[in-house]
Order: sequence, then structure tokens, then C-alpha cells
Amino acid sequence: MSQRVGTQSVLLDPPPYLSATATVGGPMEGQGPLAGDMDRIYNRLLAGEKSFEAAELKMLEECCLLALGKGNLNVDEIDYFIAGDLLNQTISSGFSALKLSIPYLGVYGACSTLNLALSLGALLVAGGVAQHVMAATSSHNSSAERQYRYPTEYGFKRPPHAQWTVTGAGAGIISREGGGPKITAITTGKVVDLGVKDPLALGAAMAPAAASTLISHFQELERDPSYYDLILTGDLGQVGRQVYQEIMVREGYSLPRYHDCGTMIYNLERQPVDAGGSGCACIAVVALGHIYQRIRRGEFNRVLLVATGALHSPTTCLQGNSIPVIAHALALEN
Amino acid sequence: MSQRVGTQSVLLDPPPYLSATATVGGPMEGQGPLAGDMDRIYNRLLAGEKSFEAAELKMLEECCLLALGKGNLNVDEIDYFIAGDLLNQTISSGFSALKLSIPYLGVYGACSTLNLALSLGALLVAGGVAQHVMAATSSHNSSAERQYRYPTEYGFKRPPHAQWTVTGAGAGIISREGGGPKITAITTGKVVDLGVKDPLALGAAMAPAAASTLISHFQELERDPSYYDLILTGDLGQVGRQVYQEIMVREGYSLPRYHDCGTMIYNLERQPVDAGGSGCACIAVVALGHIYQRIRRGEFNRVLLVATGALHSPTTCLQGNSIPVIAHALALEN
Repeated sequence: MSQRVGTQSVLLDPPPYLSATATVGGPMEGQGPLAGDMDRIYNRLLAGEKSFEAAELKMLEECCLLALGKGNLNVDEIDYFIAGDLLNQTISSGFSALKLSIPYLGVYGACSTLNLALSLGALLVAGGVAQHVMAATSSHNSSAERQYRYPTEYGFKRPPHAQWTVTGAGAGIISREGGGPKITAITTGKVVDLGVKDPLALGAAMAPAAASTLISHFQELERDPSYYDLILTGDLGQVGRQVYQEIMVREGYSLPRYHDCGTMIYNLERQPVDAGGSGCACIAVVALGHIYQRIRRGEFNRVLLVATGALHSPTTCLQGNSIPVIAHALALEN
Repeated sequence: MSQRVGTQSVLLDPPPYLSATATVGGPMEGQGPLAGDMDRIYNRLLAGEKSFEAAELKMLEECCLLALGKGNLNVDEIDYFIAGDLLNQTISSGFSALKLSIPYLGVYGACSTLNLALSLGALLVAGGVAQHVMAATSSHNSSAERQYRYPTEYGFKRPPHAQWTVTGAGAGIISREGGGPKITAITTGKVVDLGVKDPLALGAAMAPAAASTLISHFQELERDPSYYDLILTGDLGQVGRQVYQEIMVREGYSLPRYHDCGTMIYNLERQPVDAGGSGCACIAVVALGHIYQRIRRGEFNRVLLVATGALHSPTTCLQGNSIPVIAHALALEN
């Protein structure tokens, strides 16, 4: 039986398997260094649809179907579909749930959504109420920019610490039996806020959440960073990654095997993405694609995913509030 | 150990207790017939704050603190805070989670959010990974109207089938041990869409989701409506309630002890709410206040809550999509 440890962590027993995953990417992602690990690349932002929102929905649906195919499962075998995304009213997820017709649990954790969905799925499978759960998320650069900032057609000048919302989707199937790495532990985040008010400085805003959750994870489970072959944050980008490392060093942790998905998904020297990738799909595409395949090949055996999210809205920023942030951690072990 | 039954239902074992609840309402709710069952009424829509969004946040936070007080619990004893609301990026919930500093699981199910949060909380408590979980939700008439339709100051003329978003909040504490009714079964909804495109006709849009989930509940658990003292839908209102009853009769079910929170929270003859109440807080205030107290007094012993939600956004409606809907059911038994 799964066991709560401390105030934020759970050791999963029996640990469920992340039995199959799929990822899709958009045009910029298709020109990045991890393109070869994506199951499908859409070379156009509209993906043949009439709106960016419809394109994001198409990518998420396609990704879910690809994950089912790779897991040799059909929709009737999935007990819950747990999903969320950045668009208002999490429409990509809700409309995907309509098409899939699987009992649907909608979640929202901004760019931490992947780990929120995977954590809940792992708890339900370990708890014996589900055989298979599909966790999924998506983001789209043009739909997100329009909603959170300005339509991309306006040609808004980005500051160098801004990040580039990833266009794509990721889906993972959590199974009671099967192959693949096990989800052995989760650490659920508390919301923190260190006073950052600039909605273009999300990496710096989210860094303290990643540090907070990671320190709880190490303390509660009595592990240190050397336990993991790889610690992977979601989308801190070049600026947030540095802030995060500074906090961790100040707190007495070294992080020798640490990477951030936001700095991996693009070629930061050649692609105009400023401080790196962000968005729900950033960690989803990197962790469920490139990293998952390397775990399956045995190149990594213990990976800690730390997905970070900023829980503001344009309204809260215009009203002068600072940005509350959260991070959820999840351990994958061979 | 909890047991999955059919494709959508779970029988909870050991069934957790809904050990304490609290509700707060706004000015219109304070003039309605259920005002006496609310823990606090705010006589002004701004509740002393500078924006409607800040007022909604204040109501939700206050409601969570009231529930903790009534349950004789402090925040450190709550293992998870599960919440969602109607505002973009579910800001009321995220900002409340910052103040409460409890590990936070953000959810989104539009007006079905209460049951989504209660269901997940019940699964986690029954699964042994939590002693106490707080589930909460809120809505505010003025913040919702501004976001989904027009600022209320514009004086938009409402059609008679429109519903009035409830201002208020509800919080419930789910506990492994303690008093109060038990959460014995849940039925998680699938998203359905019967083609309604009018975002002011949400009651009619949501009625098929309520029917779909309720029929699955009865079939999977081999129960019929007579099992319950009361079946309570969330916010179908006068129009949706009638559509729902017509569907159920056509499917061979009579519903002798059926009510809808949207028709209970206001005096429909005296208050200008058209077809009744709606919003996340509608079922939250009615079920966690008035109905919960009647269950505790033994006036009802078996109540089925059916919370319905519409998963559209203003963008999906403007782009010509119909409205996907969902309903989650949850059984409370003495």
C-alpha cells in the first residue's frame, strides 16, 4: 500500500509503470536537437486547422492516439484520462476528452501539469482503482502568446529573459502491470511566491518552487541528489535554471547531474527562443520523448522530473499581484 | 480496498467521511431561501476588496478557514488541498493555495469542480495516502460575467433561459476517521456534446451529461433512483432541469426525489435570476451547506450529488464549436 512520507511525498506501492508514451512537436521543435525523438512533427503551426486553438487540440488528440497505439491499448482499456493545458478553460484537454470518451479528470497546474496528471494517475493505479490511466498535456506557441501576451502577428519585441512556449503535446500511460520505468515516488508542491511580478520572467519566478519541492523531496525521502542519474526541471530556461542552482547551492545541495528541459528542446545559439522553452509541452515533449527513450535503453536508471508552473493570469498581473508558483516532483526508476 | 465497478464508478472502501464543511455567500445569496444555512454572508459584491477577483479570493480563503475551524483542524493536518474555479488560470484556487500552504492539486471541471475535487479527495483518503483532504471551489457573479460575457456594468439584457452565477464558496473536509456522512461511491463523467452552441443555454447543454453519468451510476452499481432520499443536480436551472427529467423518463427512469441546486438557492419568483443559479459555488453552497446540515440531522440518509460542468470557453464558442459538458456523481450516506 502506498505510504505518505512527511507532508508532501508519497512512496508508491506497488509502483506503477510508465508503460508507454508519445510526443508530438511543432515546426520550431522539429528544427531542434530532440526532433528525432518525437513521434510526429507538424511542420506548420496551424497543422491544417483554421485556428491555433484547433491546431493545439489536433496535436493533443493525435498524441493521445499515438500513445495508445504504442501501448497496444484501445480507449476502452484506459480507466481515466487526466489532462490539462494552458488555454482558458483548459479547452484542449476538455475537447480531447470528448473525442476519447474516457472518464475525465481535468487538472490545472500551468507548466507543472504533466507531473500533476502523472502523480494523480500513479496514485489511482497504485491505489487499485485503475489498471491504466492516460496523463496528457499540450501547449501551442501562438495560442499561448495570444492569450497571455499579444498575438504573434503583432511582432512584440521579447526581452532576453523571455521564454518560447513550446508547440506540441505529450501523453503517458500509467499501468499497473507492464514494462517501462516505475513511478516510485511523488512529491506534491506547495504554492510559493517570492514576489516576482514580471510575467515575462517566469523562469526566475518558478525557480524557488522547484527548489522548495526538491528540498522537501530529499529531506522527506532521505535522499540526496546523487541518488538520481538525472534531475530534470521543466522549463526554468537559462535564467531560471541559474537562479535555481544558486538557491540549491545556498541550501547546501550540489546538483552535478542536472538539466532543464527549457534549455534542451531548442538550439539556443541558433534558434530565436531567447532564454529557452516553456509551456506545458516543454517537459512533456522532452521527458516523455527523449528522456523516456533513454531510460528505456538503460542510459538513465533513476530520473527525477520536477515540473514547475506559474499560477498567475493576465488579470492578476494587471491588478498588481506577484506570481504564485508551484512544482511537482516525480521519480522514475528502472 | 476501493473497487472499480464498470467503466466509470468506484465503490470506496473504507468509505471516507465528509467530516466538516463551510459555505459563504454574496448579497443575492444572502437574500435567498438558504441564507440561514450559510456560515457567512458578504453583503457587498466587492467584500471590501478592490476588485471582484480579489473579492472571490477572499471568500474562498475565508470559507476554507471556516471549514478548518468547524473541523477542529489546522492547516498542517490537511494533506492535500484540491480546488478549482471558473476564473482563467483558476486563480482563486491557486492564490488560496498560496495562503493555505497545503500541498496543492489544481483541478478544473467548470461547475462540476466540487465533485471532481471531492472525488479525488475521497480516492486519496480511501487509498491511505491522506488522513484529511480539503476540497473547495468558488465563483463570483461579477468576475464570471466579465470574463465569460460582459462586465455587469454594461447592463447586458439576459434571455429568460440564462442563469445567474452564484457568488460564494464551499469547502469540504474529507477524513479517514471522524463523523458525518460517508462518501460511499463516485461515478466519474465522460465528456459529451449534443450540439448546443448558445453559451447562455448552459442548463440545456449540461442536462445530457447529468443523464449520462446518472444512468452509468445506476447501471454500474445496480441501483435505481429509489435508493436515494435525494438526487441533487448542480446547476441545471429551470430549463436544464426539465430537459434532464425528459431524458431520464425517456430512458425509463422516474425521479421522484429530485432537486436542482440552481432552482433552490434563489427565490425564483422574487429575485431577478431568470432560470436560476449556476457557477461552481451553486452546488457547493447548497450541497455543503443546506443539504449537508440536513444529512447530519438525519433528514436525508442517502444523497447523490450530480455536479455538471460546461467545458467551453468564450474562444471555442466564437470559433463556432458546440459546448462539451461533463457530470460527476458522488454518493453521501449516513
